[in-house]
Amino acid sequence: MSEATPHTSPALDHTHDPALRSWVPGADGHAEFPIQNLPFGVFTPPGEAVPRGGVAIGDSILDLAAASLAGLFTGEAEQAASAASGTALNAFLALGAPPRRALRARLSAILAADSPDREQAAHCLHKAVDCALHLPTRIGDYTDFYVGIHHATNVGKVFRPENPLLPNYKYVPNGYHGRASSVRTSGTDVRRPRGQLKAPDAEAPRYAPCERLDYELELGIWIGPGNALGEPVPVAGAADHVAGFCLLNDWSARDIQAWEYQPLGPFLAKSFGSTISAWIVTPEALAPFRIPQPARPQGDPAPLPHLLDQADQGQGALDLELQVLISTSAMREQGLPPHRLALSNTRHMYWTVAQMVAHHTSGGCDLNPGDLLGSGTLSAPDPGGFGSLLESTGGGGQAIPLPSGETRRFLEDGDEIILRARAARDGAVSIGFGECRARILPAA
Amino acid sequence: MSEATPHTSPALDHTHDPALRSWVPGADGHAEFPIQNLPFGVFTPPGEAVPRGGVAIGDSILDLAAASLAGLFTGEAEQAASAASGTALNAFLALGAPPRRALRARLSAILAADSPDREQAAHCLHKAVDCALHLPTRIGDYTDFYVGIHHATNVGKVFRPENPLLPNYKYVPNGYHGRASSVRTSGTDVRRPRGQLKAPDAEAPRYAPCERLDYELELGIWIGPGNALGEPVPVAGAADHVAGFCLLNDWSARDIQAWEYQPLGPFLAKSFGSTISAWIVTPEALAPFRIPQPARPQGDPAPLPHLLDQADQGQGALDLELQVLISTSAMREQGLPPHRLALSNTRHMYWTVAQMVAHHTSGGCDLNPGDLLGSGTLSAPDPGGFGSLLESTGGGGQAIPLPSGETRRFLEDGDEIILRARAARDGAVSIGFGECRARILPAA
Repeated sequence: MSEATPHTSPALDHTHDPALRSWVPGADGHAEFPIQNLPFGVFTPPGEAVPRGGVAIGDSILDLAAASLAGLFTGEAEQAASAASGTALNAFLALGAPPRRALRARLSAILAADSPDREQAAHCLHKAVDCALHLPTRIGDYTDFYVGIHHATNVGKVFRPENPLLPNYKYVPNGYHGRASSVRTSGTDVRRPRGQLKAPDAEAPRYAPCERLDYELELGIWIGPGNALGEPVPVAGAADHVAGFCLLNDWSARDIQAWEYQPLGPFLAKSFGSTISAWIVTPEALAPFRIPQPARPQGDPAPLPHLLDQADQGQGALDLELQVLISTSAMREQGLPPHRLALSNTRHMYWTVAQMVAHHTSGGCDLNPGDLLGSGTLSAPDPGGFGSLLESTGGGGQAIPLPSGETRRFLEDGDEIILRARAARDGAVSIGFGECRARILPAA
Repeated sequence: MSEATPHTSPALDHTHDPALRSWVPGADGHAEFPIQNLPFGVFTPPGEAVPRGGVAIGDSILDLAAASLAGLFTGEAEQAASAASGTALNAFLALGAPPRRALRARLSAILAADSPDREQAAHCLHKAVDCALHLPTRIGDYTDFYVGIHHATNVGKVFRPENPLLPNYKYVPNGYHGRASSVRTSGTDVRRPRGQLKAPDAEAPRYAPCERLDYELELGIWIGPGNALGEPVPVAGAADHVAGFCLLNDWSARDIQAWEYQPLGPFLAKSFGSTISAWIVTPEALAPFRIPQPARPQGDPAPLPHLLDQADQGQGALDLELQVLISTSAMREQGLPPHRLALSNTRHMYWTVAQMVAHHTSGGCDLNPGDLLGSGTLSAPDPGGFGSLLESTGGGGQAIPLPSGETRRFLEDGDEIILRARAARDGAVSIGFGECRARILPAA
């Protein structure tokens, strides 16, 4: 990690030490939330009414408001803990990296096996299973990008066989405004939408329940300080405005989409619900899993200068394994575990997160603390890594067999989709994001 | 007005009486805000720091918080005034029509020439010219529609000469998610965006200041109570969720738009700034200006059943005259008044506001109090009523002459665009919306 680019990749420090152990039962060796992770979220403890900020550690959650009241923080860490004590984390995200890092360092010390604060902190812990998890921020705006190049190519083939990847794709980290109001936290059921469906040979559309319901495997990005209207964020400073990451399932009604999407893009096909994982995994926690942006294929144009930063190219990409799993009603009745539909990786992003932020603000559009960006579907190049059913069934043509004896072209009522992320690398303790899970309810 | 459909068109009552006079100086005969209008907004009085809700009357603003403290309201009117006393009107809009109507009736009585409360109310009045106006709500989500059929046809010709109006247009009240964070109140300058521009014959795009900057003349719609996620609003009840109207200038960078808009729709071309008029003109104030939805041209399909309500067809459209005016630096130096670029009318909406709301929620997407909808550009069929330069210059081909001797194909730095609305009808006092005005600053 180069010291010349602290904004892009926070240096590794003692909070990443693989030898670090925690006194919290179950934290050491936890698949998602060992002491090296320390993601932030909003939860309500059992018997309480008011949501507040917390930190996931093993199978527990540390109440930041309670820990703050107990006097466990001082200085910048206290400033951050206080900002993270409310019902949403916008104010905390607005603080930017230094207070967030100070809080992380202090939390690491408090939760470490040798902590002198163990007894006091233990009073601020709750079993996660007893707590309700909420949206971590009041999402002002949500923007969905399209930077998964294999997905863009696969989907392009379905909608425009002759012209899958449009000429702007390799110049523009394209995105569109999504619907912020319908984003929900993991665990919230999603109702199958109705909409206008038109068969290719039908004379007119009809209003009916969606018949081609799909998921999309995405990385979510939480915006930190952000920018004032009219003041673009340069790509070299863009990482300073990224406060963390989550998983995002951008549920999609393919039949509604096919009929509505011209000329203004996706609208009702994607605004009936989007599901995110509840925890904000920080750039600090992901520092060990940074990689160079994969080289563009021979012949691809270089990014325009305002989107090109050598430090970002050198370590602005992420190496995160992503999974999609399905659990149908029949599978649950038969006692079968969730079945993996896809295995992909964030390295399939054609543009880095910094390039997305720089592009988004390049015309002056303001990003604000707690805003959410989606990467777009992150498919691997091979069919085993396709991040949507649209891709893995070839537009619904080939049914996918499931262990229950069923098959799927698109999602059925009762189907549950689970997204998981895992960061693993030699010399680092692997961490996860927590689940992004939701079940399909029948149309109203 | 039929009593069977009070939700679509609130009956006329004494607040609309053309004989009604106000004791507020300048209110009687005021072009925009006579006592028959009474629009709501958020303002800061001179010498004060905290914004609060107010009502425009003539050239004055009545402070609702002060009037409430003075004991001028009781019952439902007090509930509404209290909800409208804060720094944003979301809570007021959430109350829906009955409290809003009660407050209107009481305000009409307080401000009427024969009011016994005149002296007390006079202490709550401020000269509008001394006050700062703010966004009336914290806009959760902003959706821009495309229901101006003449605009859709004109623009379609520029982008797709062979196929101007797509097959879905007459079935789908299409829209797209806009950027909520960059909406600003009238009077806030707009900075010319930079973006990726690509000439048709250029090999690659370049990042440069927009060269084809345009305005769009739109009606804005403020959402009232709204709906829960997964629970569509039927078209027959949709008007209950409309809390009011404003003017909206959806600034558009045509060169950025042309390069970026496929396949996901407008993004940075329209997210560098949108300007709205500050006052929420209520459905009650507009009750005298309701008209039947103009008949669809022979051969057009009927709306699908979930978008069709006879009462809405009978009186769900609006008869509002809309104007676009320009004032350039040279015009101001020469002492010339703003020059009218277009005269249009809200009757050119192919879909009603109720149909827009019903469509938006038809897949379960939730609308929330204070959300903003845009109609899309409302052009008249004739060139004198085209609501954007893209249309009135034929895609930039024909320059428009101005009284200053200048011409315009697209907007230049220093140009100010002013939108105005006027509701006028025999037997009713005419009302306006207040200006939607902003000036273009040079690119950063």
